[in-house]
Amino acid sequence: MSRRGLLIVLSAPSGTGKTTLVGRLVERVPGLVRSRSYTSRVPRPGEENGVDYHFVAPARFRDMIEAGDFLEWADVFGRFYGTGAAETERCRAAGLDVVLVIDVQGARQVRRRVRDAVAIFVLPPSFGTLEARLRGRSEDVLDPSDLQRRLCTARREVEMVGDYDYVVINNEIDACVDRLRHIVLAERSRVGAMRETIRTVVETFEAVDPAMGRQGQG
Amino acid sequence: MSRRGLLIVLSAPSGTGKTTLVGRLVERVPGLVRSRSYTSRVPRPGEENGVDYHFVAPARFRDMIEAGDFLEWADVFGRFYGTGAAETERCRAAGLDVVLVIDVQGARQVRRRVRDAVAIFVLPPSFGTLEARLRGRSEDVLDPSDLQRRLCTARREVEMVGDYDYVVINNEIDACVDRLRHIVLAERSRVGAMRETIRTVVETFEAVDPAMGRQGQG
Repeated sequence: MSRRGLLIVLSAPSGTGKTTLVGRLVERVPGLVRSRSYTSRVPRPGEENGVDYHFVAPARFRDMIEAGDFLEWADVFGRFYGTGAAETERCRAAGLDVVLVIDVQGARQVRRRVRDAVAIFVLPPSFGTLEARLRGRSEDVLDPSDLQRRLCTARREVEMVGDYDYVVINNEIDACVDRLRHIVLAERSRVGAMRETIRTVVETFEAVDPAMGRQGQG
Repeated sequence: MSRRGLLIVLSAPSGTGKTTLVGRLVERVPGLVRSRSYTSRVPRPGEENGVDYHFVAPARFRDMIEAGDFLEWADVFGRFYGTGAAETERCRAAGLDVVLVIDVQGARQVRRRVRDAVAIFVLPPSFGTLEARLRGRSEDVLDPSDLQRRLCTARREVEMVGDYDYVVINNEIDACVDRLRHIVLAERSRVGAMRETIRTVVETFEAVDPAMGRQGQG
């Protein structure tokens, strides 16, 4: 019987490098997949439906919320984003570990529904590093008010780190990916995750006549 | 400030290869040390006091039990074995992770005293494998009744696996050492183990004036 996959929740403030981290993590850990989110926003140039996101109309997204189809969802300035419960469940049932990259509110929603979810928070080494990284990007996308908003959000988010199981500092990307990798691999050895394997091994002990130390009748 | 080391408890039935496993694990994980036990038995040829064990007289061992000096201790056919609380504490305070190789009763004693101890159980792949390994050794040390006794003990021990945090199957030694290594490294990223580091990072966020996104006065 195939083992049931893990559900791993990863949160990090904007600018912490979580997209790069998770991309490399998934490459390095066989059997780990990243969950594909649903969104109601229109695809950007180059984005493909079913690859980058599942793109659905806002009305359809609202129906899915009503139907309880999401493990977590959020309304980000009028655009919906969410994680499909059925798709996640299919992966886990097939023995794949699934990683969700979601914010602290989403993480809280998931943990309420999925008791055995494993939650990891990625911290920048300091506020200064985060600010520098966001400013480094800001020529492309961030105007000053957007930068301020992200820094304020980050400040609130890092206060939630105590709600997580693990914390990893992203001071150096390869070291950080390594630490994430150790966490996923260690979680595969948790008693809860090993239940099926344990049962199989323990049964070989129970089948033995203790007085003889050999295989018994039953 | 130095981080406080982990306390890792490792149990495995006799014949599972735990001595070899832990030897290799300690070689491969910098900052991890194996705890040296106290015993009241006399040294075997080649054994050195303070290297293999702390050898103490039975009366002294009993005094130490009375004084609460052991994290756990056991009377094995009239010979005492125990783990010193003070020595373990010194290592952890110095930021070293300590691994104790102890049986299921000892593990239970430790967990009662040390709430944040991490417990790992190493299982053989099957009863048959364990029996074969013990028979393979038996020319040296095991007479048939000793073999039967160890198999019966193993049978009782594997039933306690649910009391542990992690389970690792020793089907192949290098793979098993890898899994143990992932567990130790992942536990270093636990929120509890990262408390000091988290505080340092979060303080850099709290020192900021949120309206400005720059270092504030306090």
